[in-house]
Amino acid sequence: MTRILGIDPGSQRTGVGIIDVDAAGKTTHVYHAPLLLLGEGDFAQRLKRLLVGLGEVMETYRPDEVAIEQVFMARNPDSALKLGHARGAAICAVVLRDLPVHEYAAKEVKLAVVGKGGADKVQVQHMVGLMLNLTGKLQADAADALAVAITHAHVRATANRLGVNVRQAWSRK
Amino acid sequence: MTRILGIDPGSQRTGVGIIDVDAAGKTTHVYHAPLLLLGEGDFAQRLKRLLVGLGEVMETYRPDEVAIEQVFMARNPDSALKLGHARGAAICAVVLRDLPVHEYAAKEVKLAVVGKGGADKVQVQHMVGLMLNLTGKLQADAADALAVAITHAHVRATANRLGVNVRQAWSRK
Repeated sequence: MTRILGIDPGSQRTGVGIIDVDAAGKTTHVYHAPLLLLGEGDFAQRLKRLLVGLGEVMETYRPDEVAIEQVFMARNPDSALKLGHARGAAICAVVLRDLPVHEYAAKEVKLAVVGKGGADKVQVQHMVGLMLNLTGKLQADAADALAVAITHAHVRATANRLGVNVRQAWSRK
Repeated sequence: MTRILGIDPGSQRTGVGIIDVDAAGKTTHVYHAPLLLLGEGDFAQRLKRLLVGLGEVMETYRPDEVAIEQVFMARNPDSALKLGHARGAAICAVVLRDLPVHEYAAKEVKLAVVGKGGADKVQVQHMVGLMLNLTGKLQADAADALAVAITHAHVRATANRLGVNVRQAWSRK
């Protein structure tokens, strides 16, 4: 059994989702939540909250591997900069614990979860709920985090089946 | 005596500079170096190198306060995103040690060091060298890091003189 932490980083809200995957590729839901970065404090404090919050999630659930959504091109330099800060902090939280980081483009995540690279948010939320037997409406960032974890679980299972190394776009050497 | 760490974050090279400032505002050079983020390893590994490298500098020199250059608008979303990752990692290194972070725009730094908001890199390097009695040519990123530390030293000394709180744009609450 391998435990995968999925992260969907954002400067206002970072989604985290954890699943277990067995050797056959069967996935089980473990945990999900949005980490809220809005509210009190300046931007440095919010980054700290993300760093500490992600650290606590990893401390509690002890994932073996981490999958993170690749950033699709942001619309403007200002939002790209903010998103970069959040994503940098999230990656720091992971590398501080020496976990391998795998990166997937949003399109790959949608393909893996919905079967269409152009699927919309609602379809992703719906399919993630179905695949993990969740009832009730999933918050969008948490759904995206679970979706990237599921994507990694599938890539991993396929790689295992074929006897090749799983792609490690962001992995440690 | 207060020890100030200045950081000029970049996705390829992050400059660090450390100065001491006394109650009268007199500054003394302590250390400077560029932290190289290029070379071996993927981007996550390079961010880790920045996080660890900055941590080591803080461990060795024990700064009391930190000044970091504010990002002037990057030219395109892709470079803004990369720069954001590096800056996020640098801020993480600082907040992990619970140090206050002060932010200054490039224009303010140039005004403080050269006396002109539109000064060029070479003028900044030259003036930083003169102000800190350094001989030899300063590497540009290290000079920028020392320059933002000098800026904070001046703002700090002025605030002390006026009996007001130093501006803490990125400070912890």
